[in-house]
Amino acid sequence: MSKVHNFSAGPGILPQEVLDKSAEAILNFNGINLSILEISHRSKDYIPVMDEAQKLVKELLGLDDDFYVLFLGGGASMQFAMVPSNLLRTNGTAAYVNTGVWASKAIKEAKMIGNTNVVASSEDKNFNYIPKGYTIPADADYLHITSNNTIYGTQIKQFPKSPVPLVCDMSSDIFSRKINGNDFTLIYAGAQKNMGPAGATMVAVRQSALGKTDRKILSMLDYKVHIKGESMFNTPPVFPIYVSMLTMKWLKDNGGVEWIEKINRQKADLLYNEIDNNPLFIGTVEKEDRSDMNVCFLLKNTELEPEFDKLAKAGNLSGIRGHRDVGGYRASLYNALPLESVQVLVDVMKEFGRIKG
Amino acid sequence: MSKVHNFSAGPGILPQEVLDKSAEAILNFNGINLSILEISHRSKDYIPVMDEAQKLVKELLGLDDDFYVLFLGGGASMQFAMVPSNLLRTNGTAAYVNTGVWASKAIKEAKMIGNTNVVASSEDKNFNYIPKGYTIPADADYLHITSNNTIYGTQIKQFPKSPVPLVCDMSSDIFSRKINGNDFTLIYAGAQKNMGPAGATMVAVRQSALGKTDRKILSMLDYKVHIKGESMFNTPPVFPIYVSMLTMKWLKDNGGVEWIEKINRQKADLLYNEIDNNPLFIGTVEKEDRSDMNVCFLLKNTELEPEFDKLAKAGNLSGIRGHRDVGGYRASLYNALPLESVQVLVDVMKEFGRIKG
Repeated sequence: MSKVHNFSAGPGILPQEVLDKSAEAILNFNGINLSILEISHRSKDYIPVMDEAQKLVKELLGLDDDFYVLFLGGGASMQFAMVPSNLLRTNGTAAYVNTGVWASKAIKEAKMIGNTNVVASSEDKNFNYIPKGYTIPADADYLHITSNNTIYGTQIKQFPKSPVPLVCDMSSDIFSRKINGNDFTLIYAGAQKNMGPAGATMVAVRQSALGKTDRKILSMLDYKVHIKGESMFNTPPVFPIYVSMLTMKWLKDNGGVEWIEKINRQKADLLYNEIDNNPLFIGTVEKEDRSDMNVCFLLKNTELEPEFDKLAKAGNLSGIRGHRDVGGYRASLYNALPLESVQVLVDVMKEFGRIKG
Repeated sequence: MSKVHNFSAGPGILPQEVLDKSAEAILNFNGINLSILEISHRSKDYIPVMDEAQKLVKELLGLDDDFYVLFLGGGASMQFAMVPSNLLRTNGTAAYVNTGVWASKAIKEAKMIGNTNVVASSEDKNFNYIPKGYTIPADADYLHITSNNTIYGTQIKQFPKSPVPLVCDMSSDIFSRKINGNDFTLIYAGAQKNMGPAGATMVAVRQSALGKTDRKILSMLDYKVHIKGESMFNTPPVFPIYVSMLTMKWLKDNGGVEWIEKINRQKADLLYNEIDNNPLFIGTVEKEDRSDMNVCFLLKNTELEPEFDKLAKAGNLSGIRGHRDVGGYRASLYNALPLESVQVLVDVMKEFGRIKG
């Protein structure tokens, strides 16, 4: 069977060895003649999976001991509500930077819960850049930012120095580059881009930041409840966490974030170079804010799209159509996507340039 | 490899053919040379999975067109909060029947949201029976019941005739017996007992019952939001839903709920018979309320437990230790557990009787 080059924006590509081990665990987990799908999350075979997953997050993000790592269900969208529920005091204000659809949704939920202050936004240019130089109110309960925007293809290259607790949605670029994890108070990420499959969300939160609001918090929305339950207050998404653990282990065993950052940079450079040098194409994002994860570009002549799509399909390129809000094309270059796949995409773009040039 | 008889209380046993197909889909889903773990939930290969899962729930429960079926993350515990958020008016009262740990947790969350009235409870006898003959207030916004108690091994055999909307947590006995689905207003169930693996929760809700509260509902807790998003308001737990779909399909293809109910009755009868006739053992639950799903029993002489455990282990019996709240033993006889496994357990009990008799 011919190889598919999987540029899906998410759920996204996973390493082949992770898929192989995951399939094996479905048939016979740990050699116990039972499937990982049909054993208790409190069994002696599964507890080490959760422990290892939590440990790997702390290692890969370089987090200190104040952090507790949770794996929850419900998706990153649930965090849009959980973050203000836990960190926004009843008389406090939460500061948000609006850099796209996901940030807007986070703001919407926070507004339902308490006072919010949108301190910066790039909505004026359809979110094609990252706002900079904004003032962060020193009395805000926290500042919420989104490190990477899957839809618009922007990425924060330099995180703001924040006088207040920094909360970051890293769903689409977690573990893709080196960060100073300890600069943050809370980091969350849906698993389905760089961490694993859909169905689990990682939350790393400073325990010292919790318990400061007098707000009544529903049990399932309360980080303290989940921490007390050691991320098993209720039945966790067992298999998505297992696959996430394997994916993080694959990353660590191959050299960790430092290793993948170099490759991710190579992949992004290769593709942005072609976009900038091929007269048929144009990028959609301010150059300094271009995402290394989601590369958005257009055909200058949109009428050529069907022809380019045909060529892309013949080259086994999958998932490169852009989001409906931006149009054109989007190639997602998550950790598990090999450089080779980007080269195939670039070759197809070059060939299209020759045909139409 | 010798067969393991999997009596796990949950996540519980799944049909072998479901496991085989699940493993295959991880390596190559639908023959598209991509894993089901790395494709978009909005892709043309996945949409039919969600459609089919929703359809199968309606078929297996016999639900009319007023019902909408959702598959959400977060577990049944999230429903403890979502049910009152959506159905309990700010000046209304919700009625609950307390039949165990899970019902108690549901009551706790409802109390955080509004007025509740516990109309019946079996807490006086450590939840070893199902309360009956209680009065349901005609002005309650709904009555919440739990059809089966995994921990205590009780099961509602006859659902109450309710003058108010009936809400039921069916996590541990859904699809195990024929019910009149249309008698309910909302049915929910964590997947990990009779429906699939951990990580997805099914909610079937009458659309006509929604929108009657003036309560402010967070998006992720709002059934109307999820219905509008066709159960894909945010990325759903893709793989747990797929495995649930396969499990429901397995049930339907083999004869549906009518077929499995007969087998479940046979399995339960076989085991309860042995418990009642073997002088070493005793059941923990009032006979008329005994669950066909979770069979709880004790060794009259608890000092014999280590010896019985050894014999059980030799017979490849897995997951039969009771919950810490009840002690002793608990055999969960979920749909996918074959009669043969129950026979092996009964044979081990008989042998133990001979040794000790």
